[in-house]
Amino acid sequence: MSSSPPPPTTSIATHTAEDVFVRGRSLCRELIGKVTFTEMTYLHITGRVPTPAETAMVDACLVTLMEHGLTPSALATRLVYSSAPEALQSAVAAGLLAVGSAFVGTVEGCAALLERILGAADVATEARLVAEEHRAAGRPVPGFGHPEHKPDDPRSIVLLKLAEAQGVASGHVAALRALAEAVDAVFGKHITINATGAIAAILGDCGLPAEILRGFAVLARCAGLVGHAHEEQHKPAIRAIWEASERAVPYDGAK
Amino acid sequence: MSSSPPPPTTSIATHTAEDVFVRGRSLCRELIGKVTFTEMTYLHITGRVPTPAETAMVDACLVTLMEHGLTPSALATRLVYSSAPEALQSAVAAGLLAVGSAFVGTVEGCAALLERILGAADVATEARLVAEEHRAAGRPVPGFGHPEHKPDDPRSIVLLKLAEAQGVASGHVAALRALAEAVDAVFGKHITINATGAIAAILGDCGLPAEILRGFAVLARCAGLVGHAHEEQHKPAIRAIWEASERAVPYDGAK
Amino acid sequence: MSSSPPPPTTSIATHTAEDVFVRGRSLCRELIGKVTFTEMTYLHITGRVPTPAETAMVDACLVTLMEHGLTPSALATRLVYSSAPEALQSAVAAGLLAVGSAFVGTVEGCAALLERILGAADVATEARLVAEEHRAAGRPVPGFGHPEHKPDDPRSIVLLKLAEAQGVASGHVAALRALAEAVDAVFGKHITINATGAIAAILGDCGLPAEILRGFAVLARCAGLVGHAHEEQHKPAIRAIWEASERAVPYDGAK
Amino acid sequence: MSSSPPPPTTSIATHTAEDVFVRGRSLCRELIGKVTFTEMTYLHITGRVPTPAETAMVDACLVTLMEHGLTPSALATRLVYSSAPEALQSAVAAGLLAVGSAFVGTVEGCAALLERILGAADVATEARLVAEEHRAAGRPVPGFGHPEHKPDDPRSIVLLKLAEAQGVASGHVAALRALAEAVDAVFGKHITINATGAIAAILGDCGLPAEILRGFAVLARCAGLVGHAHEEQHKPAIRAIWEASERAVPYDGAK
Repeated sequence: MSSSPPPPTTSIATHTAEDVFVRGRSLCRELIGKVTFTEMTYLHITGRVPTPAETAMVDACLVTLMEHGLTPSALATRLVYSSAPEALQSAVAAGLLAVGSAFVGTVEGCAALLERILGAADVATEARLVAEEHRAAGRPVPGFGHPEHKPDDPRSIVLLKLAEAQGVASGHVAALRALAEAVDAVFGKHITINATGAIAAILGDCGLPAEILRGFAVLARCAGLVGHAHEEQHKPAIRAIWEASERAVPYDGAK
Repeated sequence: MSSSPPPPTTSIATHTAEDVFVRGRSLCRELIGKVTFTEMTYLHITGRVPTPAETAMVDACLVTLMEHGLTPSALATRLVYSSAPEALQSAVAAGLLAVGSAFVGTVEGCAALLERILGAADVATEARLVAEEHRAAGRPVPGFGHPEHKPDDPRSIVLLKLAEAQGVASGHVAALRALAEAVDAVFGKHITINATGAIAAILGDCGLPAEILRGFAVLARCAGLVGHAHEEQHKPAIRAIWEASERAVPYDGAK
Repeated sequence: MSSSPPPPTTSIATHTAEDVFVRGRSLCRELIGKVTFTEMTYLHITGRVPTPAETAMVDACLVTLMEHGLTPSALATRLVYSSAPEALQSAVAAGLLAVGSAFVGTVEGCAALLERILGAADVATEARLVAEEHRAAGRPVPGFGHPEHKPDDPRSIVLLKLAEAQGVASGHVAALRALAEAVDAVFGKHITINATGAIAAILGDCGLPAEILRGFAVLARCAGLVGHAHEEQHKPAIRAIWEASERAVPYDGAK
Repeated sequence: MSSSPPPPTTSIATHTAEDVFVRGRSLCRELIGKVTFTEMTYLHITGRVPTPAETAMVDACLVTLMEHGLTPSALATRLVYSSAPEALQSAVAAGLLAVGSAFVGTVEGCAALLERILGAADVATEARLVAEEHRAAGRPVPGFGHPEHKPDDPRSIVLLKLAEAQGVASGHVAALRALAEAVDAVFGKHITINATGAIAAILGDCGLPAEILRGFAVLARCAGLVGHAHEEQHKPAIRAIWEASERAVPYDGAK
């Protein structure tokens, strides 16, 4: 720990005897009862209260990401909850640890491609280039394709329609549509925009930076995991998961 | 792993090629764009879409709990983020692990007292009994008192006023008010209802079960921790925290 | 954050340009190559290098606790590893979060009973009292009984024989044996000392305080979870666990 | 979840009424009291009991990595412990989440370079190439240099001397020495092999695969974090850390 840079500061919050201040606003006079949880989250991260249309779209994305059934994430929460019921926060934390590259990597990967396309001289040309690079490398394009939802992911259709209706769709959604056209042309078949692709574009058009998009997946999933912990309180599944897993992954006796 | 009970089921979610279903509702047709994140969270946990007034109060409680500055929870998130920036979810999880008994124990403790008072024959008598027991044991009453916010916690005042205005305040809030009166009388001085007390009563009157209240603190704090991770991306504080802590907790050389 | 107590210090470690000092000893001159990992762990926690016999017993207890197959803890590690392979530490952390009251509660519960028996005027009388209280309350005695290992848990037999051979067995083991006799007499049948009971007594006789025994379970399991993460790298089980769990816990469609 | 590969198996462990088997060996007859914790860990991961010399070196590396004072990792453990003292495992898990790329990235990075050098036709030529590439890119060579320990990291000297004395040092250590020579020549000054470089080479020569080296850092640090949780039980530092951090990172009021 040698010579240090100038000391850092925080712009997030402070508190006095009479109030708490978040991003320069009075919690008691300007925020409680005045903004929703979603608006407060947006404000916390960006320093700005979102427009009603932006709020509607962030809500829609969080609602979409919240729940997908007994995913690895939900299973981890349930296994930990019943092992340590005194610490509900541990169960939720364990589930969140599974919100990693395999799950949200495609949101971030798609967001990076959209930024690249937006920064290029010509959107259509760059989108074509992106599609060709992925095709040549034999790699799927992040934000495209779905093993189950064919020919189209119904969540993307609903989300993108909503973004148009709310007037939020702009550069990122346009880049996504250009990329979708290029993907179909280059791969020679229709490949759906999946939910992570739609969400990457929509949150980008809501003014949210790419480097924090994973945080929205974490937040949405956090709510779902609280629900799984609650169900585990009333309908414990730990033993069924445990026994089914032992049967599904038998001991092979190899040294 | 001996004889098992009948196999458990889940009521939370399932998915088909065309849709995802959460609590029996179509994600694409009934939820995305139709409910807010807060309403979806309430639905996930209770199986019921909340009334607008309930939604307003859950939003108000989540907004209140989201942020309190550089708490132990926020510090843990920042220390882990800068140590493992490839895994934002780990940083948030580390911070959530600090949402334990020292922080949210009082919400749960207060909720348990309110349930007890509500279940008694006479609210005022039971409230008095509760206050007397705590006084005799030399223990603070969970949900009451605050080292900084004196004579009254401004957040509780705002929250309880809002709950009355929204018509949500009923049994639990009445039990809290009875308890507040008893506390002042028994302790012989005014002790404020603090934010955790107000939130325990209000979420109870919103129909949320006591055993999952910690989950709402976890969710609210999750959003705040995403914000701290984001600030750590741009204004890293890890080295300042590290060096200040080393100075504040020196090595004493004891064997 | 009102008036503070005198500032805390740490006795654990400091570092200079030439060395690191742990518990007052030079890492480079007195520890690396001079003590085993187990001895270093004991030194870190107690400030004292253990005797060879104590080391042998701590090793034996850690070896016993390390691995139990595809437990909830190992399953959580594997689910998280394959979801976020970029962060092996997250996978291990998720598994450790399951080392809670349901798993190590009995080590701590047994240790508390042994302390109580040791602190009483007469060991046999207090042991009898403990057994009778549990019988009357219809509760199992922590550290006793096992659903599979009947009539005796083979691990306890080996561990306790080793503790006698090493000359480590003293007060805590004697209290455990007295309790075992009382349990058989009071419950009217033989109930085995299980591995957690033996470990609670042996670590106690090794001079390790009850409040940190959970830490030894955490450490032993940590090694096992690293091994499960490593196997998941080469023989991924996530999909088999996921699919088996979805089949074992079906959606019931209840609202 | 479409068509699946052949079902996975586990080679780690199984259990019967009479015993537990780990890597094909009887826990009760072949492991408890027969192998140390370090040997058992090595066996768990590789399927082979290490030689005494390998054990000595793994012990030495784990001892070296265990403790470095009030690091971000130790601070996270202490902050979480005092926030949720009911869940010691959470505190340790929080600290482990900080064992990420910033801390152990260099072990993995150095191990990858050593594998590359070992796989080349000529060790010296490839080492020179590696050094030149890093110099040209303006990047430090992983495993080399230390801000405090100059001109040499004393831990590396002790560890490498021990590896020679134990007869463990072979290809990886030779590659590290060749790289050290090339680094000094190419950068035109002496840059020390640091502890992470020495450990990467030594664990490699002990037969441990590069992809699990992070697991050894996690395990070593786990023991240290249990010790920090234990000190936090007796000399709580949370408030001192909290207050010092608030002073070190003041609120700037920016919106």
